[in-house]
Amino acid sequence: MLKMCLIGAGRIGAIHAGNVAKHAQARLHSVVDVNRDAAVKLAQAHGAEALTSVDQALANKEVNGVLIASSTNTHVDYLIKAAQAGKAIFCEKPIDLDLARADGAIAEIQKAKVPCLIAFNRRFDPSFRKLHDDLRSGAVGKLETVIITSRDPSPPPLEYVKVSGGLFRDMMIHDLDMARWLLGEEPVELYASASCLVDSAIGKAGDVDTAVVTLRTASGVQAVISNSRRATYGYDQRIEVLGSKGMLQAGNVLGTTVSRWNGEGVAADKPLNFFLERYGAAYRAEWDAFVTAVETGKPVSPDAQDGRKALVLADAATQSAKSGKPIAIKY
Amino acid sequence: MLKMCLIGAGRIGAIHAGNVAKHAQARLHSVVDVNRDAAVKLAQAHGAEALTSVDQALANKEVNGVLIASSTNTHVDYLIKAAQAGKAIFCEKPIDLDLARADGAIAEIQKAKVPCLIAFNRRFDPSFRKLHDDLRSGAVGKLETVIITSRDPSPPPLEYVKVSGGLFRDMMIHDLDMARWLLGEEPVELYASASCLVDSAIGKAGDVDTAVVTLRTASGVQAVISNSRRATYGYDQRIEVLGSKGMLQAGNVLGTTVSRWNGEGVAADKPLNFFLERYGAAYRAEWDAFVTAVETGKPVSPDAQDGRKALVLADAATQSAKSGKPIAIKY
Amino acid sequence: MLKMCLIGAGRIGAIHAGNVAKHAQARLHSVVDVNRDAAVKLAQAHGAEALTSVDQALANKEVNGVLIASSTNTHVDYLIKAAQAGKAIFCEKPIDLDLARADGAIAEIQKAKVPCLIAFNRRFDPSFRKLHDDLRSGAVGKLETVIITSRDPSPPPLEYVKVSGGLFRDMMIHDLDMARWLLGEEPVELYASASCLVDSAIGKAGDVDTAVVTLRTASGVQAVISNSRRATYGYDQRIEVLGSKGMLQAGNVLGTTVSRWNGEGVAADKPLNFFLERYGAAYRAEWDAFVTAVETGKPVSPDAQDGRKALVLADAATQSAKSGKPIAIKY
Amino acid sequence: MLKMCLIGAGRIGAIHAGNVAKHAQARLHSVVDVNRDAAVKLAQAHGAEALTSVDQALANKEVNGVLIASSTNTHVDYLIKAAQAGKAIFCEKPIDLDLARADGAIAEIQKAKVPCLIAFNRRFDPSFRKLHDDLRSGAVGKLETVIITSRDPSPPPLEYVKVSGGLFRDMMIHDLDMARWLLGEEPVELYASASCLVDSAIGKAGDVDTAVVTLRTASGVQAVISNSRRATYGYDQRIEVLGSKGMLQAGNVLGTTVSRWNGEGVAADKPLNFFLERYGAAYRAEWDAFVTAVETGKPVSPDAQDGRKALVLADAATQSAKSGKPIAIKY
Repeated sequence: MLKMCLIGAGRIGAIHAGNVAKHAQARLHSVVDVNRDAAVKLAQAHGAEALTSVDQALANKEVNGVLIASSTNTHVDYLIKAAQAGKAIFCEKPIDLDLARADGAIAEIQKAKVPCLIAFNRRFDPSFRKLHDDLRSGAVGKLETVIITSRDPSPPPLEYVKVSGGLFRDMMIHDLDMARWLLGEEPVELYASASCLVDSAIGKAGDVDTAVVTLRTASGVQAVISNSRRATYGYDQRIEVLGSKGMLQAGNVLGTTVSRWNGEGVAADKPLNFFLERYGAAYRAEWDAFVTAVETGKPVSPDAQDGRKALVLADAATQSAKSGKPIAIKY
Repeated sequence: MLKMCLIGAGRIGAIHAGNVAKHAQARLHSVVDVNRDAAVKLAQAHGAEALTSVDQALANKEVNGVLIASSTNTHVDYLIKAAQAGKAIFCEKPIDLDLARADGAIAEIQKAKVPCLIAFNRRFDPSFRKLHDDLRSGAVGKLETVIITSRDPSPPPLEYVKVSGGLFRDMMIHDLDMARWLLGEEPVELYASASCLVDSAIGKAGDVDTAVVTLRTASGVQAVISNSRRATYGYDQRIEVLGSKGMLQAGNVLGTTVSRWNGEGVAADKPLNFFLERYGAAYRAEWDAFVTAVETGKPVSPDAQDGRKALVLADAATQSAKSGKPIAIKY
Repeated sequence: MLKMCLIGAGRIGAIHAGNVAKHAQARLHSVVDVNRDAAVKLAQAHGAEALTSVDQALANKEVNGVLIASSTNTHVDYLIKAAQAGKAIFCEKPIDLDLARADGAIAEIQKAKVPCLIAFNRRFDPSFRKLHDDLRSGAVGKLETVIITSRDPSPPPLEYVKVSGGLFRDMMIHDLDMARWLLGEEPVELYASASCLVDSAIGKAGDVDTAVVTLRTASGVQAVISNSRRATYGYDQRIEVLGSKGMLQAGNVLGTTVSRWNGEGVAADKPLNFFLERYGAAYRAEWDAFVTAVETGKPVSPDAQDGRKALVLADAATQSAKSGKPIAIKY
Repeated sequence: MLKMCLIGAGRIGAIHAGNVAKHAQARLHSVVDVNRDAAVKLAQAHGAEALTSVDQALANKEVNGVLIASSTNTHVDYLIKAAQAGKAIFCEKPIDLDLARADGAIAEIQKAKVPCLIAFNRRFDPSFRKLHDDLRSGAVGKLETVIITSRDPSPPPLEYVKVSGGLFRDMMIHDLDMARWLLGEEPVELYASASCLVDSAIGKAGDVDTAVVTLRTASGVQAVISNSRRATYGYDQRIEVLGSKGMLQAGNVLGTTVSRWNGEGVAADKPLNFFLERYGAAYRAEWDAFVTAVETGKPVSPDAQDGRKALVLADAATQSAKSGKPIAIKY
């Protein structure tokens, strides 16, 4: 039985808390948050304790797992502490915005030999998972081209944009992980083209809101990622892979199956609005995969190395977009 | 080389004339119409002659085929004359609104042993044809249920309604033929439920505009036809067949493949508006099937017996809707 | 806070138990089942008590609601007892297979003035609910035709068929309720055509497995229901409504959005397999609707009268299929 | 009345010949081909003359238009001769594989002030045309991203590959024109990533078969083109445009609307196989646009400048793929 302490009682923390609480082989032991009231409220909703500090949680022998869902700049500290305390770790992406700091945490995780899942939730989406598994089992033969479309319904608050690390590290990092997962071999080169087209305030804050990245593996397979901070029709999350024997596509999930036919044409429902709706099943499956791996002693996946490599690609994309040049990837 | 005389230079006659003219093994020899100007105009457009009478056409040794696209009440006379003159016949549906009169024409056709195709054009629609052929080749195993949806974009002029023979003989006759073709065995019983919901003037003229008919074969297979004289979204022409191994569906043909995604949802194009658009390819294929059958001496299909049986079913549906009772079919 | 006693710890009971347990304003108080072990196991899973009899449960002042998910032939007894004990009632469909017995229960429910929801779960399916609401809000103008397709993936065990009351009372009753709900006015006449095509053993047991029913309202609107006990492609649950301004369709829910394109064509996932998968969200929403109605003192819907009227229609369909004649509905 | 001489009686020449012959305001006057038999056969099929040389055709006063559908390396000569002879010109793409030679032809065309349409047929595809027109009329607000997918069913013969000018000039040139047409402003920079993944013989011949190109306009709008010489599922021709108010997609055209539902899932028909099938309507519309423009004295579009600019982009893509660097476009 995994007894988890959740660090971070915000929106994504609450999602994870609900999934922990419902899982047959796990229990939400406790919640810690700098906002004490939020911790108390979330803990009570799931019959858990609200603790006053991470140290208190880690010192508790009952707690054998830690779920890090606090702000990005705290991840490394908690990862190191949790690893040193020998706890199983489930950590929200990204490990950190700074590769050197991330490397420090990874070293401690490796030393402690604790399982550490980095929460790239999209790998657990039923449609993307099926596409991935079909691809691996040869449904389209030898892979040639990957196209990932990933657009948020609307930009985050400007204050968030400013501390986000930029579109590539904050948003596209999910798609870079997805590209690695689908490609099955590492990208060796990357070219990013990016613009500020959605909101000029984002540009003034030094970031971009629209981007296209092309990745290339040693064997010549190419992956394209199209990102935008705005899609008026909802959360646009699609994947397409072309291979020697055909193509697989995973499309958007629409709100309902209702269509209306009239003189204007045929109108269907729009895609689910954002990640909480689209990836609800993925969050549950992700948690289940973590529990199963820890309980059976199998490696967790995606792990800290996956978290690191996605960050390397995000850094390269940031650099490419700034310099206007393709970047050779060095992991 | 088939040298065809077209009788009837109206809308559907013009469609057929164009297809005859373009066919490699056929030629439009001449056009006859009570409206002399229409005949001249259509004949000129295709390098044919305008003749003054059907008799003149039938007396012409060069003419070896007759295409009857005149008003329904003239079909029987022209069928009999054409059969007696030994011409190959391509005749628009229905043979007649009166079964006894139709039988008279069929007797002459049989006596003369001339090929006579009754133009149930939908059998030649590429999607419906593929569904039919897949069904016959066992794609869904043993057939259990047929559902035919057939709705016009808007009602015909009231003057037409009054002489049309009613919805069942004028409109549903196409779907009754389709049901027979798909079922592969004859319906033995039929129940019709019909209403006047679209335009009360149609009801005052003694007709209905909305109908559901259930047909039943001896082996217990059931077919449902849903008709309406109005579908604001265009010409609604769909088929679904369920069998022991699965289902086949043939859907509407949309104007383009363009979809628009925005805050309202996903909007696709509407179906093609009416029969000229939807069944353009069917009219060409129908004509080609006729030419090929005549040239190779193979039986034409659907033939006069098919035309007759569809009329029997339309009569039964008319009677059922009036009496409120199921009708046992007697062919 | 609703404190529910669940009667019946079978498959559907377990579904309801899970939804009760997760609901913020309800609690699973206890479980009763003739199979004592099943009751204990389900109760333990949700922190509830296993009681030894329904009488014990009803005598308990803490229990203020009863969830009847036992076998159909016990519904009436439990409905009457629960009503007399003044409990809020959530009862699986059908009330009973015998209309007179159902009437007896309804009389007691009315006398006791307790809320009683009859669990026509499909009314709570998000797509069907949206179609219904759009229809009511005028999205297609005046309603003209309803087409309901409802096919199970495979027939139930023969032992179940024998006690089920027949396809119309056991399976189509859901669709008859759906038809009433969508029509917005009562059917006045009905015609059923039914066959045994899937499994001859079903026919030997006196039942049918394939059916088409046409319903008609006083205003002339027609509804068609197509049922089959077998659809190799999964649970086929679709609705289409045609009106003066257009059409609404609610389609099947596919397992994932993945499609595979190759030389064979485009292959999409099949529909969710059966009711537990397809109607998971509906079961949750149904339960939530019940709790909200009871807590706020508003009428529950669908109620016992809805349950009764669906049964009247199922009886009429049974009679029509046997007699081969349309039946005028008498409620 | 346009009286056209067709130069080149090959596959695409035959398509154009058929469309010329059927057009009400045009006539196929004559056909010239180095393969005399091919010219005679095609001419006879449409009641035209087979001429022995282009010079003979251009000297004929009756001929007022020339349709150049011969091999690419002859285009420039015939363009210059036709321009000098004052004929209206309809020329297959590309103008030439060499920009300097193309410029020579364009200079003559400008001097002669003759209309000259370069046959980028996809601009006339009904779905792409509608997408373009909807985009221009503001359906998605300000344009931000364009994604063009363009894949052939299978590679051309190796002999053709060797003289084709390479994937960018031979195949992607269509998509580069499409990108320009949709963007509505000129790309200023381009990055190409390309591989040989389909057939190593193509690589040995110095060409690539799989490519991704990213284009960028001065305002920061990005367009992506995905090309492959192989798509086992047929001709893959899709466009997607994202803007401030939503997205437009134009999808593939499937062979029929038939779908088959069984235990394997839902199987639809595959896309039309190749350009003759997919772009049949486009070829007719393209020809009609040319005739209308010439007859009314309006500018033809796309014109020789469009042909030139697409070639500039194709050259830049070739250079980028070879050098691995982004290329600034100089028109």
